[in-house]
Amino acid sequence: MSTSDKKVTAAVIMIGDEILSGRTQDKNLGFIATWLGERGIRVMEARVVPDIEDEIVDAVNTLRAKFDYVFTSGGIGPTHDDITADSIAAAFGVPIGHHPEAMARLQAHYDASDIEFNDARKRMARIPDTATLIDNPVSKAPGFQIGNVFVMAGIPSVMQAMITGIEDRLTGGARMLACSVAGQIAEGVIAEPLGVLQDKYPQVSMGSYPYYKDGTFGANLVFRTTDADLLAKVQNEAIEMVRALGVEPVVGDGT
Amino acid sequence: MSTSDKKVTAAVIMIGDEILSGRTQDKNLGFIATWLGERGIRVMEARVVPDIEDEIVDAVNTLRAKFDYVFTSGGIGPTHDDITADSIAAAFGVPIGHHPEAMARLQAHYDASDIEFNDARKRMARIPDTATLIDNPVSKAPGFQIGNVFVMAGIPSVMQAMITGIEDRLTGGARMLACSVAGQIAEGVIAEPLGVLQDKYPQVSMGSYPYYKDGTFGANLVFRTTDADLLAKVQNEAIEMVRALGVEPVVGDGT
Repeated sequence: MSTSDKKVTAAVIMIGDEILSGRTQDKNLGFIATWLGERGIRVMEARVVPDIEDEIVDAVNTLRAKFDYVFTSGGIGPTHDDITADSIAAAFGVPIGHHPEAMARLQAHYDASDIEFNDARKRMARIPDTATLIDNPVSKAPGFQIGNVFVMAGIPSVMQAMITGIEDRLTGGARMLACSVAGQIAEGVIAEPLGVLQDKYPQVSMGSYPYYKDGTFGANLVFRTTDADLLAKVQNEAIEMVRALGVEPVVGDGT
Repeated sequence: MSTSDKKVTAAVIMIGDEILSGRTQDKNLGFIATWLGERGIRVMEARVVPDIEDEIVDAVNTLRAKFDYVFTSGGIGPTHDDITADSIAAAFGVPIGHHPEAMARLQAHYDASDIEFNDARKRMARIPDTATLIDNPVSKAPGFQIGNVFVMAGIPSVMQAMITGIEDRLTGGARMLACSVAGQIAEGVIAEPLGVLQDKYPQVSMGSYPYYKDGTFGANLVFRTTDADLLAKVQNEAIEMVRALGVEPVVGDGT
């Protein structure tokens, strides 16, 4: 993939009633965010929207105007409730039809498996005009790219195979580097010196993530910057800061 | 809690860079959606937004106008990156200050624990004007309600204790009932008869959720309606539909 010096941003849209009902725990956002982050693309917002065309259109059009890339997952299967392709076509104001290359790939796949390529399966070849296909090495039915929007499957293994295949279509920016310094220390204690450290290094993003385990609070301090030397310097100061509070810090890579 | 005959809706906003970076897997949406669903409140949208005031304000103001309730999690701790309370005050255009009752609760808590009630900890008593407190039985620092927006902690155990405590403030609608019929059957096979069933019962929401395991595709069909008799009738027809395809269905409660 190519790289750019500017900050490159993305949004993720997860499409499906099943996440909003609590039935399914989303497993895609974490993977997409981590994978993009490693390539210098920062996820700045994520939305979960229901299987309702107007809602999908609204989210896609808002987020594609706001960020460099938008990645969607879910709703591109053969059943009546899979309305993502039609919704994306509506968002872009383009017609949708059976894409010849998508039809050919699916025809070959089903022929080889001696499975009927029925009308429902042909639905998976419906692609908005001007879109380009995204390969699906797992189950063949392709995703697609239109403008800066990448439309992928919801099944995690299929989504992961799809996004891996589009790496060379993306331009990454400077990679955000991270480290963490954790300790069994209350946030109320670390807050003041951490605030001082943040004021000293405003160009470093500093987050404190509390946890509560076995009746004790701890905090994981995460530092992020694109500057490796600066990150090392801040990490050392954070280690000293935690030690000064009488706690032995646990240093990590921020993941 | 009281109940209403109308459809009652909600949105969930998860606030925090750590979910967008992929470092933390959200565990709150599933709990909130399930808990609300059991009380007849349907989560229609969820957003993950970064620790940036304008982004929080925008999400809160959009979603509180669109749905009956908004629930937020995250960003109400004592550190500099906890900006949720200030952002909510900005969203509602009200001042924010140290809330006397919140101060009293925290003072008593820290006095009892012989811990200093320092400025950072006092930050957790900053509550927008006109808001009412939400109890925090775990670590005392309260959440708050302003208008139809409920502001809760991000730590799952604390958030769960908070939402449980506000049940009396909510009005639930007709509870959405669900059942599922699953089978080791490709979506491309089930799609056509499922579409026929959907056309026959348009008032029942029907979703097909494919899964891929050990090289085989299966589908979990989920049916949702507020009408118990209708749900039982549709479930029986779905069971027959799957059996007619030569697969023994596995019936579940839709969760």
